[in-house]
Amino acid sequence: GIDGSGKSVQLERTAGYLETLGYDIVKLREPGGTELAEKIREILLSNESDISPETELFLFEAARSDLVKKVVKPALKEGKVVLCDRFYDSTTAYQAFGRGMPDAVINIINAFAVGGLKPDVTIYLDVDLKTAKKRSKRRKKDRIENCDDEFFLRVIEGYRAIAKKAKDRFYVIDATRSLEETFKEIISIIAAKLKKVRGEENSA
Amino acid sequence: GIDGSGKSVQLERTAGYLETLGYDIVKLREPGGTELAEKIREILLSNESDISPETELFLFEAARSDLVKKVVKPALKEGKVVLCDRFYDSTTAYQAFGRGMPDAVINIINAFAVGGLKPDVTIYLDVDLKTAKKRSKRRKKDRIENCDDEFFLRVIEGYRAIAKKAKDRFYVIDATRSLEETFKEIISIIAAKLKKVRGEENSA
Repeated sequence: GIDGSGKSVQLERTAGYLETLGYDIVKLREPGGTELAEKIREILLSNESDISPETELFLFEAARSDLVKKVVKPALKEGKVVLCDRFYDSTTAYQAFGRGMPDAVINIINAFAVGGLKPDVTIYLDVDLKTAKKRSKRRKKDRIENCDDEFFLRVIEGYRAIAKKAKDRFYVIDATRSLEETFKEIISIIAAKLKKVRGEENSA
Repeated sequence: GIDGSGKSVQLERTAGYLETLGYDIVKLREPGGTELAEKIREILLSNESDISPETELFLFEAARSDLVKKVVKPALKEGKVVLCDRFYDSTTAYQAFGRGMPDAVINIINAFAVGGLKPDVTIYLDVDLKTAKKRSKRRKKDRIENCDDEFFLRVIEGYRAIAKKAKDRFYVIDATRSLEETFKEIISIIAAKLKKVRGEENSA
């Protein structure tokens, strides 16, 4: 979801909950998570940077491909559960819908960057822009957070469009509710999915 | 061409020659040429960097898209002649043939990075690996120059494959000859092309 939707808090809570169930958790955020990706993150989010939409897209994908190869795939191979704050759907929402880059190209680039990897579950924390802005008021804004309202309205529209296409894994959660209510729904979805995925792995 | 083929020397000479003919010249090299692209260049070429082929590809394209948008397109619009040491054919040669990334994806990404821009002339300085190595022996090698012989043999094969596909603009020059002979052939090709391109512009 957009900034102020509650992603980092809910990710932290979810990680804690899954740990109590005995899962080995790897928490990540995009862009970032490797030495190289953190360098790219600095460039991408700095208010000093002057970056075109095309260059922005490539930098996100450079950070993503590095993270997937060095961290996500090895962790999954070891049977860990990877929780990531943002993944390629955010590129569709921000760069395709927000910036107006062509969908078709972004789909190809996204798939290439992650080597065909697909999240088992994607949780979209759906909030209206007004609520999100109220919640994120305290923090200092980065280059992308500093975009205008029209941009974020297109991003929200983007996430909702993905929801219609990726029904098998993409869950839209009403995140205007309290933290507690939102969290309850998140863990019920994730617990069910984990049970299913791990069940399939064990019977395979 | 590969390192040691004589690109930078011939580019310098060509720039000088075209200046004497009255052309306004912009000299560039990839990756680089903007503040952001130079930052990316450092990451790409540092022997300290640990970069996967996918991430490498995205970083080259990030630098390229920044250069094209901020420097190349504005210069062309002002009627200048842009000479660039490397462009997207190098990505096909190095990342597709050298690293084994899929051609089809690279073609899409290349075209997207430059917004459909196509060089009027591409000069490929063809040298065998032995000659190239002898010539570039003095310098300290960067991360990509430190690749093994098999890699560079695939890169050379890549350039030759492009030559067969892009006949309208891609010129293979035997660069094992002396600097002077090679230069003579380069300027004859470029002068003819410039005359043609500028003639078309004037009659349009």
